[in-house]
Amino acid sequence: MLKRSALEGRESAFSMYNARMQENTAIQDNSSVGIVAPKTAHFNQPLTLSSGQILPQFHLVYETYGKLNADKSNAVLICHALSGNHHVAGKYSAEDKHPGWWDNMIGPGKPLDTNKFFVIGLNNLGGCHGSSGPLTTNPSTDRPWGASFPIVTVEDWVNSQACLLDHLGIQSLAAVVGGSLGGMQALQWTIAHPQRVRNALVIASAPNLTAQNIAFNEVARQAIITDPEFHNGEYYNHGVLPRRGLRIARMLGHITYLSDDAMGAKFGRKLRGEEYQYSFDVEFEMESYLRYQGDKFAGEFDANTYLRMTRALDYFDPAKQAGGDLSAALAHVTADFLVVSFTSDWRFSPARSKEIVKALLDNELSVSYAEVTAAHGHDAFLMPDPHYHNIVRSYLNKVKV
Amino acid sequence: MLKRSALEGRESAFSMYNARMQENTAIQDNSSVGIVAPKTAHFNQPLTLSSGQILPQFHLVYETYGKLNADKSNAVLICHALSGNHHVAGKYSAEDKHPGWWDNMIGPGKPLDTNKFFVIGLNNLGGCHGSSGPLTTNPSTDRPWGASFPIVTVEDWVNSQACLLDHLGIQSLAAVVGGSLGGMQALQWTIAHPQRVRNALVIASAPNLTAQNIAFNEVARQAIITDPEFHNGEYYNHGVLPRRGLRIARMLGHITYLSDDAMGAKFGRKLRGEEYQYSFDVEFEMESYLRYQGDKFAGEFDANTYLRMTRALDYFDPAKQAGGDLSAALAHVTADFLVVSFTSDWRFSPARSKEIVKALLDNELSVSYAEVTAAHGHDAFLMPDPHYHNIVRSYLNKVKV
Repeated sequence: MLKRSALEGRESAFSMYNARMQENTAIQDNSSVGIVAPKTAHFNQPLTLSSGQILPQFHLVYETYGKLNADKSNAVLICHALSGNHHVAGKYSAEDKHPGWWDNMIGPGKPLDTNKFFVIGLNNLGGCHGSSGPLTTNPSTDRPWGASFPIVTVEDWVNSQACLLDHLGIQSLAAVVGGSLGGMQALQWTIAHPQRVRNALVIASAPNLTAQNIAFNEVARQAIITDPEFHNGEYYNHGVLPRRGLRIARMLGHITYLSDDAMGAKFGRKLRGEEYQYSFDVEFEMESYLRYQGDKFAGEFDANTYLRMTRALDYFDPAKQAGGDLSAALAHVTADFLVVSFTSDWRFSPARSKEIVKALLDNELSVSYAEVTAAHGHDAFLMPDPHYHNIVRSYLNKVKV
Repeated sequence: MLKRSALEGRESAFSMYNARMQENTAIQDNSSVGIVAPKTAHFNQPLTLSSGQILPQFHLVYETYGKLNADKSNAVLICHALSGNHHVAGKYSAEDKHPGWWDNMIGPGKPLDTNKFFVIGLNNLGGCHGSSGPLTTNPSTDRPWGASFPIVTVEDWVNSQACLLDHLGIQSLAAVVGGSLGGMQALQWTIAHPQRVRNALVIASAPNLTAQNIAFNEVARQAIITDPEFHNGEYYNHGVLPRRGLRIARMLGHITYLSDDAMGAKFGRKLRGEEYQYSFDVEFEMESYLRYQGDKFAGEFDANTYLRMTRALDYFDPAKQAGGDLSAALAHVTADFLVVSFTSDWRFSPARSKEIVKALLDNELSVSYAEVTAAHGHDAFLMPDPHYHNIVRSYLNKVKV
C-alpha cells in the first residue's frame, strides 16, 4: 500500500500558500480534527459493475471526523478526485507534517464544520491507498489483482459508497461533497440514490469531459502504457514500476491543474541559473517544478490506478443514457445543490458548471451557484481562498441535521 | 534524411478541410507553383551560434517559387514552425498527393502571389529534412552529428538565413513571413537585420513563450529524453528510435494546436464503437486521432530535431536583452508589419500578438493588426480561411517590389 498525502505535493510548490496554511494550522490548532486513523470496511457481497463484471467481495478504507448524531442525520461524504484518497483531514501523528488533502476545509469551525457534521472520507475502488484495487489481493487467486482489476466507473464508486453508508448505519447523507472527479461522484449520488442525499456540493466539476479533457487523459495513459516497464500492467511481477510514464502523466496533469496566469505569476520565464545554459537540463523554474512533481508522484502512486481514475473521468456522462439530455438525466433528482466554479479553471471551466446548473434549474431544483474569481485554475478548489470557503460555510450552515 | 509534408498529416484529419483544399487544387491547378525540387546551399564559413559554439561549415536545403526580378527586390522568405521544412508549396511530381505545407497560401494568384514574388522556403539548421542537423554528417568526424549537434536559436536561424540570402544575391527581402515559431523568426529578422527586410508578417506568434508554453515543451522533451531508446540522443548508433517518446510529444502537441471548441466540433465524445468497451484501447474518436497523429509523426520526424525546435521556442525572448522591455528591444526596427492572431488560439493567444503590436507602435512603426475569428486554434494559421487569406493578400498587394 502506497502512502501519500494526495495533494500536498502540488500545494507545497506554492510555498507562499503552504506557509500561509501552515501558519493557519499552527495558530488555529483547535481547528484541526486532530489525530486520525483509517479504518477498513469489508463487504462480502458481490458488486455488479458498469462493465458487467462482478466484484465478488471488496473492502474500502475510510476515515471519519466528528461524531455521528443520534438520528444519524449529520453525515457528509467526501468524494476524492484523481489522486486523492481517504485521508481528507487531520494527521496520523503529532509529528505528521502532512495533514489530509482537504484539511483547510474540514475541521472544528472550518467551512465543513466537524462540530456539526460527521464527515466520511474513503479511498475509491481501484485506488492505491488501501481499498480494493490493483495493489490488493484478488480473493479468487490469492495474488494481487494487478491489471486484472476491473475498470470502475463513477457509478460503481457511488454504489460502493452506498454500501459503506449501509455499513455505518447511515440511511441519508446531509451532504455529499466533491471537487473535480469528486464533484462528478456528488452529482451521480443525487441521480443514483436520490432518497439518500439531501445536499450535493459539486465543485470545479463538469457533467462530462470535453474532447480536450479526453485527449489529455489519453496522452497520460499512453505515456504509462507505452512505458517498457509497464508490462501490460503486470509490472509488479517484473519487479519494476512504469515510473517514466507515470512521471510524464503527472507533469502533464499539473499543467492542466494550474492556469496559464497562475503559472506565469509563480514561474513566468524565471531561469534556474543566471543565463541560458544551452542544454536540455533544467533552464526554467517551470521545468524544475514539473520534474519535481512528476518524480514525486511516480514514486508514490500506482500506474494501474492512474489509468482507472482517468478512464472513470472519460466515461462519466449521465446525459448519455438520456439521449444526451442532461436535464432529463436529472429528472429524478431531489437534492439541493451548491455548484462552485473558478474563473481561471480551464480544465473544468465555469461554463461546464453552468451546464449542470441549467439542468438542475430545468428540474426546478434548489441550486446555489458561485463562480469564484480565483487565479489558481482547477487547483483553486483545494486552496484556502476566503471567498470560496465562506460560500461553502454559508451553504453548509443552512443545512439541517 | 526524412521526408514528409510537414503538416499535411495534421490537416488530413480535418477531412472536410482537406476535401475543400483538394477541390481547390483540382479546380485551380493554375494556382499551384507546380513541380518543384529542393536545392542545397553550402556555406564553407563559420557560423557563431548564440551558445558560443561555432559551426565551422553548414548547408541549408531550400526551395524557391516564382522568379527573382531584375533588381532582386521581390524576394519573400518563409520561415517554418516546429515541424515544418523547406517544402512550402508545390509538388515533387505530378502524382505527388501532398503539396508543400503552405500550398494554400503560396502560388500564382494566391495570397502570397508567385506572379509577383520570388518565394524562398528553407529547412532550418538543426532540422531533419536535409539542412545541417543531427542527421547530417559532422565534417570534423565524418559521422552523423547526432546529439552533438549544437542547440540553435531563432537568432542563429535568422543569421543562417541571411547567409542564404547572400548566396542568392539578395540584399533585401520584400517580406519575411512566418507563423508560430516562424513568426518569431520574422520578428527576429527585423531586429537583427533591419536594413534587409522591408515587411514582416508575424502570424499566430508571440514575443516569447509563457510558463505554460514552456511547460508543454518540457513534458514533450521529457517524454523523448526518458524513452529508453533515446540513448542520450545517440539512438542512431543503437539502431533504434525513441518512437514512444516522440509519439507522446506529438500527441500532446496536437492538443495545443487545436482549440477545445474545434476538438469538440470535430470529435466531441464520439465513440469508436457503439458502446463503452471498458478497456484502455481506443474508445473515443479523439483518442484514435491522437494515436494516428502520434504514430505517423514518430515514424517520420527526428527526436533530436524535436528537442532543438522546442528549445529554440523556449529561448526566444528579444526583450530579455533589453531588461524585459520589448519596445526597447525593437528600437532599431524599421520594417512595416502585418500581425495576425486567431481568436481560438490558446497556444499563442491574440493577447500575445498584441504585445508585439504595442511594442511596434511604441516605436511608431507601421503596423497592421488583424484578430481573425477562427475556430481551429493555433492551427488556424495553416487553414485556408478566406478572411485570413484576404488579409494577407491585401497586405502583400500593397508591398512594392
